[in-house]
Amino acid sequence: MSVLIVGSIALDDIKTPVAEHPNLLGGSASYSAVSASYFSPVNLVGIVGDDFPKEHIELLRGRGIDLEGLQIVPGKTFRWSGEYLLDMNTRETLSVALNVFENFSPDLPASYRATPIVLLANIAPDLQHHVLDQVEAPRFVIADTMDLWINIAKDSLIRLLGRVDMLILNDGEARQLTGETSLVKAGKAIQALGPKFVAVKKGEHGCLLFGGKGEFFSCPAFPLEELRDPTGAGDTFAGGLAGYLAKEDGPVTFEKLRQAVVYGSVLASYNVEAFSLERLKTVDAAQIDERYSTLHRISQFHAAK
Amino acid sequence: MSVLIVGSIALDDIKTPVAEHPNLLGGSASYSAVSASYFSPVNLVGIVGDDFPKEHIELLRGRGIDLEGLQIVPGKTFRWSGEYLLDMNTRETLSVALNVFENFSPDLPASYRATPIVLLANIAPDLQHHVLDQVEAPRFVIADTMDLWINIAKDSLIRLLGRVDMLILNDGEARQLTGETSLVKAGKAIQALGPKFVAVKKGEHGCLLFGGKGEFFSCPAFPLEELRDPTGAGDTFAGGLAGYLAKEDGPVTFEKLRQAVVYGSVLASYNVEAFSLERLKTVDAAQIDERYSTLHRISQFHAAK
Repeated sequence: MSVLIVGSIALDDIKTPVAEHPNLLGGSASYSAVSASYFSPVNLVGIVGDDFPKEHIELLRGRGIDLEGLQIVPGKTFRWSGEYLLDMNTRETLSVALNVFENFSPDLPASYRATPIVLLANIAPDLQHHVLDQVEAPRFVIADTMDLWINIAKDSLIRLLGRVDMLILNDGEARQLTGETSLVKAGKAIQALGPKFVAVKKGEHGCLLFGGKGEFFSCPAFPLEELRDPTGAGDTFAGGLAGYLAKEDGPVTFEKLRQAVVYGSVLASYNVEAFSLERLKTVDAAQIDERYSTLHRISQFHAAK
Repeated sequence: MSVLIVGSIALDDIKTPVAEHPNLLGGSASYSAVSASYFSPVNLVGIVGDDFPKEHIELLRGRGIDLEGLQIVPGKTFRWSGEYLLDMNTRETLSVALNVFENFSPDLPASYRATPIVLLANIAPDLQHHVLDQVEAPRFVIADTMDLWINIAKDSLIRLLGRVDMLILNDGEARQLTGETSLVKAGKAIQALGPKFVAVKKGEHGCLLFGGKGEFFSCPAFPLEELRDPTGAGDTFAGGLAGYLAKEDGPVTFEKLRQAVVYGSVLASYNVEAFSLERLKTVDAAQIDERYSTLHRISQFHAAK
């Protein structure tokens, strides 16, 4: 099956305590689409300006991503600039320029409208609604979001929750959205707002997955020693998860979602090893399988005494 | 086998955002000993004043804990007073009065000296050395510690690391002790100081276990919705872990330690449901097995695609 991914495509300037890189390929759709492409065909929906480097287009095309839904228009590409503090967990946005993204209101190509798996990557909830309106009877819809939308577009986000099968967000955002300190309570409170499944990302502490009938999965993080750039880790996670779900036919069960969460974590663990998509774009199937096996090994223990 | 536990026995005044309780049974040895007693015979080493309530002695005795090493001396019992902030993770010590604990320098009863498993619960490293000096050829020695000792007794603690098989500490302490931001690096840096095994506790995020030859285990936290009093969670974890190791003969393998970490986590999850040892003291074997099974269920996923 294919997965439809809509989100931002950006040029990022990123600063960490040890390095600074301007003009990098970024954006939620870039990371998500490349990550998903390791498992399934991807239909990409996004917009860039005529300043967008051709090499980035070639990277996406080289991953087999369908670019019929990618608009290239006169003007400048969306730009984001951010800085990570010493702990590499705290991020400050230095500047944002929406540019061509400001009035983006895509019409889906006819060939995209029946895509069975939909990932509404991190963008404004109104835009997520707009895209979802155009998909015919999707099998499984995943939404990603961020603190910004909880702050400035909460009503639209809450309405979206009634329309999706799964929400992905991080621990701080889960607490912010629900007012609950306990992540277990927060996850359940989000389920009560609509989505049957909720994934709460905890960065270096892994991920919690909530399912129907009290189903619950605690996914460990890959034990990384070095983290060079956390940008796009969440987008990569979401893309890997969605791509894995699209890989096989059949219903989305909690068992399959557990595996999808693990694959998403594996892809994210590679992504943070380098700036932009430099590491993510060179991952291969054997490397993915290797870290999946490692995560399996480090989380096992005997059932009985 | 038996486990020898030395640590503090205290009367605590504890404040949380929703409740305040004075004069509670506390101290690292109290929590550790009761927790360990669910698995193995315990030889307790500690000191209290003649103000120590008889009911607490009866609680320890009722759990089958050997009290020959418990000194009851004229004077006041060690007292600690602390307050938890709104997130229940940040704790402020309001007051400490060492009282009879100030000059505690125990001679181990002869019957304790051959105890095979030793838990040096959280106390001053010099006192941990003093007790360890008196144990004859222990099979496995575990030390617990805290930020205070890293601040004021680091040299003694570092020397202790060369004498123990395992160190238990929390994430903040692991970073403080090693200067490493990455917990994976911190765990390995601590191993390089002596202990073959290191457990890094992460509170609501579970625990990381480091073993020889790069062995690694990521233990999930039990998904608790309510947490009433985190006091003693780490001590309870250490006690359950040590008690489980003492339960069976044979060498301490990484496989057995994985299970021990899970049992420690289970006991700690019960302990934080009520103030002092109120919940911990009423746990039964079926409840322990139930949460062990839950932790097993929520951390499993298929090995293959």
